[in-house]
Amino acid sequence: MDNIYFIIISIVVALMAFLFAGWLYLWVKKQPSSNEKIARVGELIRRGANTFLRKEYVVLAKFTLVVAVLIVVFLPTPIWKGDVLENIIMALAYIFGTIFSAFAGKIGIQIATIANVKTAEAAQKGIRPSFLSGFRGGAVMGMAVVGASLLGVSLIFIITDQTSALLGFSFGASSLALFAKAGGGIFTKTADISADLVGKVELGIPEDDPRNPAVIADNVGDNVGDVAGMGADLFDSNVASMAAALVIASTLGGGKHIGTVFCFAAIGLLASIIGVAGARMGKKDDPTAALNMSTYVTTGIYAALTALATYLFEFNWRIWGAAIVGLLVGVIIGIVTDYFTNDNKKPVQNAAESSEKGPAFTILSGVSYGFLSVLPAMVGIAVSALAAYKLCEPLGAGYGMFGISIAAVGMLSIVGMIISNDAYGPIVDNARGLAEMGELGEEVLDITDSLDSAGNTVKAITKGFSIGAAGLTVIALLGAFISEVNIIAEEHGKELISGFDVTNPIVFFGLLVGAAIPAVFSALLMLGVNRNAQRMVAEIHRQFDEIEGLKEGIEGVDPEYDKCIEIATEGSIKELIPAGLFAIFMTLVVGFVGGVQAIGGFLVGNIVSGLFLALFMSNSGGLWDNSKKYVESGHHGGKGSVAHKSAVVGDTVGDPFKDTAGPSINTQITVVSLVASIFAALFTLYSLF
Amino acid sequence: MDNIYFIIISIVVALMAFLFAGWLYLWVKKQPSSNEKIARVGELIRRGANTFLRKEYVVLAKFTLVVAVLIVVFLPTPIWKGDVLENIIMALAYIFGTIFSAFAGKIGIQIATIANVKTAEAAQKGIRPSFLSGFRGGAVMGMAVVGASLLGVSLIFIITDQTSALLGFSFGASSLALFAKAGGGIFTKTADISADLVGKVELGIPEDDPRNPAVIADNVGDNVGDVAGMGADLFDSNVASMAAALVIASTLGGGKHIGTVFCFAAIGLLASIIGVAGARMGKKDDPTAALNMSTYVTTGIYAALTALATYLFEFNWRIWGAAIVGLLVGVIIGIVTDYFTNDNKKPVQNAAESSEKGPAFTILSGVSYGFLSVLPAMVGIAVSALAAYKLCEPLGAGYGMFGISIAAVGMLSIVGMIISNDAYGPIVDNARGLAEMGELGEEVLDITDSLDSAGNTVKAITKGFSIGAAGLTVIALLGAFISEVNIIAEEHGKELISGFDVTNPIVFFGLLVGAAIPAVFSALLMLGVNRNAQRMVAEIHRQFDEIEGLKEGIEGVDPEYDKCIEIATEGSIKELIPAGLFAIFMTLVVGFVGGVQAIGGFLVGNIVSGLFLALFMSNSGGLWDNSKKYVESGHHGGKGSVAHKSAVVGDTVGDPFKDTAGPSINTQITVVSLVASIFAALFTLYSLF
Repeated sequence: MDNIYFIIISIVVALMAFLFAGWLYLWVKKQPSSNEKIARVGELIRRGANTFLRKEYVVLAKFTLVVAVLIVVFLPTPIWKGDVLENIIMALAYIFGTIFSAFAGKIGIQIATIANVKTAEAAQKGIRPSFLSGFRGGAVMGMAVVGASLLGVSLIFIITDQTSALLGFSFGASSLALFAKAGGGIFTKTADISADLVGKVELGIPEDDPRNPAVIADNVGDNVGDVAGMGADLFDSNVASMAAALVIASTLGGGKHIGTVFCFAAIGLLASIIGVAGARMGKKDDPTAALNMSTYVTTGIYAALTALATYLFEFNWRIWGAAIVGLLVGVIIGIVTDYFTNDNKKPVQNAAESSEKGPAFTILSGVSYGFLSVLPAMVGIAVSALAAYKLCEPLGAGYGMFGISIAAVGMLSIVGMIISNDAYGPIVDNARGLAEMGELGEEVLDITDSLDSAGNTVKAITKGFSIGAAGLTVIALLGAFISEVNIIAEEHGKELISGFDVTNPIVFFGLLVGAAIPAVFSALLMLGVNRNAQRMVAEIHRQFDEIEGLKEGIEGVDPEYDKCIEIATEGSIKELIPAGLFAIFMTLVVGFVGGVQAIGGFLVGNIVSGLFLALFMSNSGGLWDNSKKYVESGHHGGKGSVAHKSAVVGDTVGDPFKDTAGPSINTQITVVSLVASIFAALFTLYSLF
Repeated sequence: MDNIYFIIISIVVALMAFLFAGWLYLWVKKQPSSNEKIARVGELIRRGANTFLRKEYVVLAKFTLVVAVLIVVFLPTPIWKGDVLENIIMALAYIFGTIFSAFAGKIGIQIATIANVKTAEAAQKGIRPSFLSGFRGGAVMGMAVVGASLLGVSLIFIITDQTSALLGFSFGASSLALFAKAGGGIFTKTADISADLVGKVELGIPEDDPRNPAVIADNVGDNVGDVAGMGADLFDSNVASMAAALVIASTLGGGKHIGTVFCFAAIGLLASIIGVAGARMGKKDDPTAALNMSTYVTTGIYAALTALATYLFEFNWRIWGAAIVGLLVGVIIGIVTDYFTNDNKKPVQNAAESSEKGPAFTILSGVSYGFLSVLPAMVGIAVSALAAYKLCEPLGAGYGMFGISIAAVGMLSIVGMIISNDAYGPIVDNARGLAEMGELGEEVLDITDSLDSAGNTVKAITKGFSIGAAGLTVIALLGAFISEVNIIAEEHGKELISGFDVTNPIVFFGLLVGAAIPAVFSALLMLGVNRNAQRMVAEIHRQFDEIEGLKEGIEGVDPEYDKCIEIATEGSIKELIPAGLFAIFMTLVVGFVGGVQAIGGFLVGNIVSGLFLALFMSNSGGLWDNSKKYVESGHHGGKGSVAHKSAVVGDTVGDPFKDTAGPSINTQITVVSLVASIFAALFTLYSLF
């Protein structure tokens, strides 16, 4: 079968995903809701989230425009050296990349801020309908993200047939992800920390108390950080993995391999649709088991259908093997990651025990286990990359790297399912808050608690998955970078490159500098949260001082929630820009100074230390969070004990680790890798060394 | 001039250093001391330190014996494949390496535990004599370490003329450093944390209170961690840098280059002798200025004398340039590092300010600045490696890597001076404690405080220096590894290697696994401190419960100090062994599975993430320490304030960061690099891939 048919199939499956998302959306929307208090708070959250998105998208639109103009002039080849039409196409593809991702994010926020209310109210009828509302709400996001990414890549490929356009589209997705993930991460932690500092610590009012001016911003944060941000992140990884695989496939003469990439991606989405449609809670009323079961079902369907397709369409079995390697390793990394953040296991329990001796010991044990957690995931990524390479190497020169890119596609194939599970988390988390504010009673709270804790457990797996996928994707992007460089080198009669030798001092130079980037990026984000929180704390103090009757909770006196949302929004954008520009700027400096070889080292250093830090920060953050919950559930003295106070310190440190810096590093690595690929021509033509 | 003359000169200069050390030793010893209380405590500290050394050396002797036997059978080539005589020589060289380093460590402890008493008493006569006692005490260690390393390398080279023997000697030094640095680091933090937890936190008795059973162990810790441990670390780096340079020089045909290495090293030691002999306090009574001035004087003398030698003996000016690049970058890294840990600068002050909001913010800002601090040092190492390589590259194939090894030799050339400055720190720190226990009065305490704070300031520079030097050294060892592999490959008709291409999946596999090692190593050490501290806390509780009159401080009732020293000693050895064996074991697994290419990646990953973590942990730890001192000096509420409590949490987290894990990583990297070089033949002949 010709490639075109597979692309058409992809488009059809993507449209199916949209239809399915629409059906799920309507299903969630028509679930009953009646509680006025909940409706009012739900409305405030929705408005707040939309305020954030609007402001973010306005800034992003300006940023996009500037970058698009630069692309027209300089990329992939400067207009005085190359074909201006290609530049224009790339710029358009870039713009489309941001729009598609923004669209998916908007849909996610839209449904999440409806589903939270429905889930809270459904809990009055029992855990099963409540679970289904939460899960299907998350699935709308899952379907929209993967549908949009598959549709986008297919359209770009079918219309332009240019690898530069694919990279441009992917870069657009990455730019948006940088804003959504890092910006959302700063937003959510600014609000969370400020609300706690003034509310819980200074005034001693409970969490989610409506008098607290930051309480709505805090709930908005869950949505913009965990729903929109995470969706954009996985949109980005998904597009990047397909782009890398397609770029490499093109240099292998294209042919059947391009069809394979589209076919496997389409099957992944199809399997996710089936998995989502079939998801129900089992007889045991265990939401964690239900979520995990649907993941395993999707995985199984994917493996079977891709095998069938390989047989029917006579794809290469080695390439199928590479996809399965990626998928399996993704699941394994997820399970291993779970060990370090699950409160049934030693690490979380030991950290909780150490907390009895004071906060310093909470921190030390969290850092130690966070460090340990890096090993299995790194080894997992290393083994899967090696296995995929070795599987495909016998097919010919360049096929090894193609195998790695296919492993990344395989790992991300079930991303529709993964996002559904992940977006479920903030929805039920919100629902829990709403149930409390709506005073729905203890029984309902028990149900939402149980749904919430399942959300936290699967979150660890999702994060391990997305870091692993980003790792493989950027390795594949390294291959795409070499492909791009060699195309230009051939055109301009320069020396072709075959790899990056670390004993070459230019490569080593890049390696060391690249390794420092994720650390600086993380530091800038965390310092940004700190500064932004200070602004918000000042605003909360102002409101309590100036608004009469607020502190006393007089009926009818409301805080100015919007002001806090505004501060969190503006601050997050302001603080994220230096971090993002820094990473891009350093890539350009290293590229124009050291040339292609330095960039090769730079990318590798960036990948290695980025994976390291992302794993460390996500896992230690998750460990502290669950350690606190473990103590709160009555261990080591329970709430109010020394261990609890220490565990709260751990959790506060862990918040920006796991929700701001850690997950943003994924995006940073991808952005840098794409910038390198896009600038490949310029680096080849104009560099100091 | 023949190489032999330069080696003889080296031996002569080394012997001069010993003579000078002897003179300094006698000078310090004949300083007056009369206070009985001080003498008694000083005696307890000396006995405790010797107990630790004895036990450590006994374990080490067994370890050495086992390794020596293994070397005889397997290394550098298994006896059934190679020359058994070479194996025996290597084993002997290995044993000598441990003995020379142990000897230097023993001398250091010997003088440090005399000089602390003398420094305390000299403070009664003013800051100048007190400074001189402390500094000259430290200088004994500096001269002994560098003298022993230069003598050892010279003798091994002149007697055996084999590179494998050099690597064996260096591996011996590394083994000892691993025990001394990591073991000493666990010891010192176990004692420090336990003493504080029970003494200050639980019972509310002051620091250095003689009733506390752990108080002597705490003071012993300063000596075994900072004096013996740090000395062994720099002995190790110094030997490794020379060994790497000599191994590479041999593959370049030896000749004049071997002479250059010895000549430059001898001049470095000579310059340090002059610098130490001339060190006096200036008119301003500023100890920091005095320490820095002697460093700059030594640097200047070194640059001038090596230039003269290059002119006289017709060495190559490019090689001289590489040495100077290394030296300058060492100084620059030190200065930049200082920025992040100096309480006159923003980072420390910002961290102190954040502490007002609670311990979580102390931790977050310390981690953020620690991350930022990585960039300048990594760029510094990257630039110096690149510059040294490019300087020497025109001399011919293989000369670039030789240039890097010479930069490492250059950076370490003034190590005699560096150690003198660094060992000064714990001596004056001890002196401060002794002055307090001996009740020498406020004026004396002011003097020892001022001397102590200078010790902390120069410590930051020393640490930056030693991490930078380790970085360059291990890069050079990578070159040595390639040389060793190619010798074997040529003998056995295997393919020669020219480098490590990171797009080769085997290299990439090694890279990812190697990058995880320093994290796991650090985690194991920190968890070890935690476990060991628990044992010691239990012992302190037991003593307070069982020894009547101890808590009340009845005259004549003494705690059993020895028990605590025993626990710290045994625990430290027990906890360090898994960490050390893990690093070595993983090297062997990767080597025998993935072969030479995987090890290449492994070493690079290990270097990159090791440098990263060492810088991060040392600098954030230093920042927290000085942040606490900054608050204690009256800022943000001073002692007892919220900021102070938070800053204390930061300091406790920072302690194992900066004194256990951070500085041990240097040694871990060197050990792994040497293991790889020593096993080069076995990896080449027997590997799965």
